[in-house]
Formats: sequence, C-alpha cells, structure tokens
Amino acid sequence: MKLILAVIQDKDSNRLIDALGQKNFKTTKLSSTGGFLKEGNTTLMIGCEDQHVADALDVIKDNCSQREQMVSPVSPLGGNADSYIPRPINVEVGGATVFVVPVDAFHQF
Amino acid sequence: MKLILAVIQDKDSNRLIDALGQKNFKTTKLSSTGGFLKEGNTTLMIGCEDQHVADALDVIKDNCSQREQMVSPVSPLGGNADSYIPRPINVEVGGATVFVVPVDAFHQF
Amino acid sequence: MKLILAVIQDKDSNRLIDALGQKNFKTTKLSSTGGFLKEGNTTLMIGCEDQHVADALDVIKDNCSQREQMVSPVSPLGGNADSYIPRPINVEVGGATVFVVPVDAFHQF
Ligand code: NI
Ligand code: NI
Ligand code: NI
Repeated sequence: MKLILAVIQDKDSNRLIDALGQKNFKTTKLSSTGGFLKEGNTTLMIGCEDQHVADALDVIKDNCSQREQMVSPVSPLGGNADSYIPRPINVEVGGATVFVVPVDAFHQF
Repeated sequence: MKLILAVIQDKDSNRLIDALGQKNFKTTKLSSTGGFLKEGNTTLMIGCEDQHVADALDVIKDNCSQREQMVSPVSPLGGNADSYIPRPINVEVGGATVFVVPVDAFHQF
Repeated sequence: MKLILAVIQDKDSNRLIDALGQKNFKTTKLSSTGGFLKEGNTTLMIGCEDQHVADALDVIKDNCSQREQMVSPVSPLGGNADSYIPRPINVEVGGATVFVVPVDAFHQF
C-alpha cells in the first residue's frame, strides 16, 4: 500500500479527480497554496495498492503535465489602440509534484 | 514513531479530537473534501509512538465507524399532505479511512 | 528523498517559507488547525533530498522555535484606572512539530 501525495494546479483538480475515479482510485482533496507550483494549487491524497501506483501516476501525468497555453493578452488600458497589435502569448500551465509514501497499515472503519 | 492520517466525516471530527486528547494524542486538523468519503470530510494527522498506534486506532474506530442513522424525511414540498406518510429511513453516516505512515524522525522546536 | 511535514504557527509561516525559499527548498502550505499547537496553525510540506534534511530542519528551528514574547496587557475594561499598573507579561509563541517521512518515489510532470 502506498499513499500518493500530488500537488497540482486547482484548474486541473476536477479533471484529475474524475479521471482517477473512473479507474477506481479514491482521492481526498486538501486545500493548499503556493510553493511547489504557483498560487492556487491543490494537494490530493490517493491511497493505492503497490501494483496500481504506476497506473495512478499515468493518470496524473495525462491530466496535469506542465504544458503551454496560448493566451490572448487584453489590450493595454489607456494605450493607443491603433498601434496595439494583440499577440497571443504562450503561458506555462499545469504541472504536478508527486510524492509516493510507504504505508505501514491501512484501515477502514 | 508513526504518523496516522485519518480521513473522517466533519460531523465526527470534534468528538474524535476530544477522545484522542483525553488519551494524550495530539492531532492536527487539515481541511479536506470529497473522495474517500462523502463531501464534508476532515483529515486528521496524529503523531504517535509505535506502541500507541493500536490504541489510537481503537479511539478512531469507536468514534467514527460507519453506522446507520434513522432520519425522518421532510414532507415533500407541494405534495398532497394527506396521502404522505413520513417513513424514517436509514442513512449511512460516519466512516474512517486511515493510513499509518512510518516516520524517520520527529522533532519539536 | 524525504517529505518533511511541519506544523507551525500561522504567524511564523511567511517568514519560514521565505527562509526556506532562499535555500531553494520548495514548500506547499496546507491549512490546518488546532492540536499540536494552539489554534491558527499551518502545515507545510517540504520535499527534500536526504542530504538536505538537516539543513531544512535548521531553517525551521531558526524561524519557528518556541519563544517568549513580552506582551503589554490592555487595561481592564471598567476597572479603576488609577490603581491599575499594566505589567508586561511573557507569552509563549511559535513552536514547530516536525515529522520526517520517507519517500519511495518522487515525480514531476
Ligand atoms: Ni487491483
Ligand atoms: Ni507511552
Ligand atoms: Ni544538493
């Protein structure tokens, strides 16, 4: 038995929880903030048997990997609208920091 | 030394923290949500020496086990009150999902 | 690789996160409450390599150790102001409860 602690971005958390649930992984969501990733992150606790760890990691990787996203910047306030050409920029989003911790005993009451 | 991570229902958390405190277990409460149990759960971290783990688990079991509770349903809004016979129903409440994690070192500053 | 779980007082958390960041330790902050320390505490998760654990513990000790603070009590409401001599008192603040947990695997996606 292992306990997987995954720090991910808030925006990826619902998709990840759904994807894990479809494979019968149970997750507990802790509110967290800052540090490993930018502000607005979530820590998920996922308990799973040793032989399912690789599968859980795959689901995390598929749903939370750091990636680039094209964002159209808003036009500058009070700027000269005529000379302003909005240029979509790439922003890094997502990312997951994952710790796999050993579990000595697991109980459900 | 072990770290016990217990995911329990919010409604059981004050009773459990009190019961653990009476046996000199110190707990830290993390806000959590969803997954292992229904919405509205709490994750407790309990640090304890190896020889006290069984005792802590007993306290968790005694205070948080899944159990049935009789609930009187509210009468349906806009229904025909004459034909409605409220029938108390059994609802599952409580439950605890508990991970016992090894601790390499423990410090208090 | 280890995962350090440190329960500290809210008032020490920003200073500690800054001090850890200056030494390149990444932290995730979980909201927590009660128990190990008085109300208003924070749990930090710090992932670090085995050879850096002692250094991280030093930073925690330097920034969060329990210490006394002189506090000037407010004058009693409705009391006799003439006979009241405010006497600064010592209050215990800070403190850290720290668990070092082994990590089987660490991933960043
Ligand atoms: Ni299986
Ligand atoms: Ni003892
Ligand atoms: Ni190094």
